[in-house]
Amino acid sequence: MKVLITGGGGFLGRRLAARLLQRGTLGNAESREEKIERITLFDKIPVSGFDDPRIRVVTGDASDPATLDEIVDAATDSIFHLAAVVSSQAEEDFDLGLSINVDVSRRLFEACRKLGHRPKVIFTSSLAVYGGALPELVRDDTALAPKSSYGVQKAIVELLLSDYRRKGFIDGRVFRLPTISVRPGKPNKAASSFASGIIREPLNNAPSVCPVKPDEQLWLMSPRQAIECLIHGHDLGAEAFEPWPVLNLPGVTVAVREMVEVLGKVAGEAATRLIRWEIDPTIQRIIHSWPTRWDMSRARQLGFEGDPDFESIVRAFIKDDMAG
Amino acid sequence: MKVLITGGGGFLGRRLAARLLQRGTLGNAESREEKIERITLFDKIPVSGFDDPRIRVVTGDASDPATLDEIVDAATDSIFHLAAVVSSQAEEDFDLGLSINVDVSRRLFEACRKLGHRPKVIFTSSLAVYGGALPELVRDDTALAPKSSYGVQKAIVELLLSDYRRKGFIDGRVFRLPTISVRPGKPNKAASSFASGIIREPLNNAPSVCPVKPDEQLWLMSPRQAIECLIHGHDLGAEAFEPWPVLNLPGVTVAVREMVEVLGKVAGEAATRLIRWEIDPTIQRIIHSWPTRWDMSRARQLGFEGDPDFESIVRAFIKDDMAG
Repeated sequence: MKVLITGGGGFLGRRLAARLLQRGTLGNAESREEKIERITLFDKIPVSGFDDPRIRVVTGDASDPATLDEIVDAATDSIFHLAAVVSSQAEEDFDLGLSINVDVSRRLFEACRKLGHRPKVIFTSSLAVYGGALPELVRDDTALAPKSSYGVQKAIVELLLSDYRRKGFIDGRVFRLPTISVRPGKPNKAASSFASGIIREPLNNAPSVCPVKPDEQLWLMSPRQAIECLIHGHDLGAEAFEPWPVLNLPGVTVAVREMVEVLGKVAGEAATRLIRWEIDPTIQRIIHSWPTRWDMSRARQLGFEGDPDFESIVRAFIKDDMAG
Repeated sequence: MKVLITGGGGFLGRRLAARLLQRGTLGNAESREEKIERITLFDKIPVSGFDDPRIRVVTGDASDPATLDEIVDAATDSIFHLAAVVSSQAEEDFDLGLSINVDVSRRLFEACRKLGHRPKVIFTSSLAVYGGALPELVRDDTALAPKSSYGVQKAIVELLLSDYRRKGFIDGRVFRLPTISVRPGKPNKAASSFASGIIREPLNNAPSVCPVKPDEQLWLMSPRQAIECLIHGHDLGAEAFEPWPVLNLPGVTVAVREMVEVLGKVAGEAATRLIRWEIDPTIQRIIHSWPTRWDMSRARQLGFEGDPDFESIVRAFIKDDMAG
């Protein structure tokens, strides 16, 4: 198996690579476990920190038309396409969002089509594809009316992937990730960045700003569980993704207030006092447009599992990302 | 008012231009009727047959990046974007479909954005955006799962337009047309071409092939009514298109068998014997995936009207297109 991870330097890309190296195998086109021989980590800045002969690091500009033809080679079996401009950034810079989130994805599908052997392409989408008036319970086939450029761009690529799949050019699958929390590292420009920050920073004894009201609800998944779901989704047979290749992954619904309560329980009341509440109307509006109640029957039927609760998400972060 | 019609040489484009010339006015940005000073008919082949000083004919390749910047000028108030590769052709030639149906639309929106004055952009979409398992009654906000490249491409542009609108770059509106019948002229590569051919050809004493079963149902609108709806939709205020700028237009549900019965009633039994039934599995599959029962409450609330029945559609064709 030869695997490509775009956005390989991002925190999900790195974590996916580490987990794949640890597993050593991945389901091939016939869903049989096969040895992983190569993992290409592609990103715009060099990916470092991997000391394994199976890792190949390629650095380049995905928006340069030649780049993808170079990294998607005849031996490529599977691609995890994680490279993206995050939500707030796509909202601020409309052109950059379209270029990276839409055009690069299309160019990637096109590079795969040229190979002729129908590689697996795993694309991560987002709950930001939803918006507007939503039913009580959001289903995989609830209509999309995104209220952000990021959501529009993800929805466009979902459609594009479905057609590349239908035409037999790629074995594409789309997984809509809940908001990932707790992310390690620094805050980013995602509207949901605070959903990690209000836990991560206080746990590291640093202050954090919460830009939304305490009663806002979020739909969350730990990085650990997200990686397991992407690998599970990769390994399933193509028939699992008929008639439509887009699946919402199972998350945990939690109010921001409850997140802070869990923080207090796990790290003590002092930690919660490191959070300053300062509503940002733009972020508040975006977050409020995201749905929080989901019908997970199809995902569960296909064997996808979410985190049991928010406390276990916090404890997973402490174990996975705060070692030492 | 200065108006641009892309696909201005197509039969809807020509008919729209003729109707606008006849009306002489169009609602401006404040929905007040204003004199039409110029109608630019843009198409890939020269549009002829108009003898009116208000008509400007521009011929060019829309997929050439410079072209749209040229025809969308600072004086452009309103654009009817009708240029498209039809369904069967988009299915046969994947790249051509993406190029004309998606890339040209995006380039057009981009040219409008550069103007800075938020022109009205009327985009015609199609019931082909639907597919798969559908509810009994299709609504404007029923989820899209298109089963054809044409449907995917139209759905992508709907999303793109919604974001250009939300960002304040254009005053965009999308109207999903029922299958247009009876089209004048020759058969085309649309999967639904027969929906006009089985009436038009026998009325002209010529043979016609019906590629779908008699019990297939269609959702139809006359060209005359489609034009009235596009103009009505243009003239409505921007607030009518909140929160989502996509609207299904009202059609008439009719089985192919009933269409032939109406033909017999209007033109005599001999006419119906000019139809040869020869099922084309590809066309049968595409047509069968299109929905036929629709919730028209939003369209009607906004004042859109469909044809009363299929017989009046046929009689409109005879009156409008068979004169002499």
